[in-house]
Amino acid sequence: MTRRFALMIDPVAAFEERADFSGTFTMVDAAAPALSVGELSTQRGDGVFESIGVVDSHAQEVVPHLERLAHSARLCDLPVPHQEQWLQAIAVAAAECGEGEWVIKLILSRGVEHGPTPTAWVTASPASDFTAARVDGIRVVTLDRGYDLHVAERAPWLLLGAKTLSYAVNMAALREAHRREADDAIFLSSDGFVLEAPTASLILRVGDRFVTPAPNGGILHGTTQLSVYEHLSARGFEVGYAEIPVAELPKADAAWLVSSVRLAAPITTVDGESLPVDHVLTAELNAYLLSPRD
Amino acid sequence: MTRRFALMIDPVAAFEERADFSGTFTMVDAAAPALSVGELSTQRGDGVFESIGVVDSHAQEVVPHLERLAHSARLCDLPVPHQEQWLQAIAVAAAECGEGEWVIKLILSRGVEHGPTPTAWVTASPASDFTAARVDGIRVVTLDRGYDLHVAERAPWLLLGAKTLSYAVNMAALREAHRREADDAIFLSSDGFVLEAPTASLILRVGDRFVTPAPNGGILHGTTQLSVYEHLSARGFEVGYAEIPVAELPKADAAWLVSSVRLAAPITTVDGESLPVDHVLTAELNAYLLSPRD
Repeated sequence: MTRRFALMIDPVAAFEERADFSGTFTMVDAAAPALSVGELSTQRGDGVFESIGVVDSHAQEVVPHLERLAHSARLCDLPVPHQEQWLQAIAVAAAECGEGEWVIKLILSRGVEHGPTPTAWVTASPASDFTAARVDGIRVVTLDRGYDLHVAERAPWLLLGAKTLSYAVNMAALREAHRREADDAIFLSSDGFVLEAPTASLILRVGDRFVTPAPNGGILHGTTQLSVYEHLSARGFEVGYAEIPVAELPKADAAWLVSSVRLAAPITTVDGESLPVDHVLTAELNAYLLSPRD
Repeated sequence: MTRRFALMIDPVAAFEERADFSGTFTMVDAAAPALSVGELSTQRGDGVFESIGVVDSHAQEVVPHLERLAHSARLCDLPVPHQEQWLQAIAVAAAECGEGEWVIKLILSRGVEHGPTPTAWVTASPASDFTAARVDGIRVVTLDRGYDLHVAERAPWLLLGAKTLSYAVNMAALREAHRREADDAIFLSSDGFVLEAPTASLILRVGDRFVTPAPNGGILHGTTQLSVYEHLSARGFEVGYAEIPVAELPKADAAWLVSSVRLAAPITTVDGESLPVDHVLTAELNAYLLSPRD
């Protein structure tokens, strides 16, 4: 079985009237040359993406991810992806994934410089083993994101609600966290509110209430966070969105970073200070997140 | 003659003791597949770059550009590029460029995901015709960058002094400028100071004094701005760096956006209000910028 592969998606086919897109994907080895140096994804980080968890060949929450991809595309003035074509590409890719956990990435680039159409592809590769993060938890540090809580409303060109390929700052924040002997980071607004992690959403538990920073355009609305909220609501818990001052963080009864591939990682320390870990609920959340979800 | 091409640079050779790197470049057609989908430049905008102007096969200010590439690499925890190897790659590329104006881009990516080394290449393509911008000038609008003037000092993970491949916001700012019927944008800090353009530096003339926003880590130190300052100093003008409140912008006696390929573009309007254009000095600056510079 191919360990890592990609499906290159023909963007022109998306403009044609058809129901069957099976001839519009080209399978390539992930290590083989597939993109030209003129790609604006590579020259400018100019495109949008999604990461989807795959468990035993079942791609999780595909439609919510495609809806967020379309939302990101609109914020970036990119053509909105053809949902049926992408659904079929993801189905083909998921069927090729082996047993266990994989990750499928969707990438929609502005295309080749001066070119007529976007470039689009889907990659698939085995997921890393996140057992330790899910069971033992993660240490996080807080890092200033430099933006105030409401900048997204007055400056949409900062693309804060879009999941763009321009992730150098997110990667630098993770390196800074590692330098501080932590596993991950939580971004803070310059006016002292909790935002999100570089590649995950934050959920706090306060008594029997769960709260996550309000996705006011300044942060991504997490697909896994939404999925966790559905589960918690069904279990009878109260869930909500709020502007969360950083001072609330160490007072939480438990906290998690949740994301599509690592799933629910309980936070053990924030800036070196311990936070309680709810092992029972964490195990329940991860069992739920590993079950087939649509 | 090849119209667009790239030289792929073997990064391993940079660690070898050698003086001649001629065997460490591979010429590829710019349109041919050359990069894998695992490239972190494309997945995360994770890398750094430079754009160098080439005039009649002479690459301009190569060493200052390589020094800034090295500075960007250090800020991003990337291996510092081997200057001699890159000098030889640029020399090969410049010799392949035809008459007239071309642009050579240097790209240093973090490499392929989970890969052992960075990926590096140099592209060359004919420059667009910027005569109208240089002679008739450009209309600009001011756009909030969302960061205060001193955020770079307290949050180096925002990579503000690095020229990274994560340029989606810069591109979105240019689209916003076009939506407002302007040609370019000037970013402002959230506390009301003038910063830089998405792909250029700003120089103001006030009487016989020239001033540019101080490169305090929050903005790039422009190679073309430095070159213009050398020329102006030699002509006997006073040049300097300052924190420039946005209110100073419409009071300037002239203003330019300067960059490596478009060169000196006089600003005709800021947010719809006219600014005087110094046509004589603009022509002199562009003649200087088009002459061979090292």
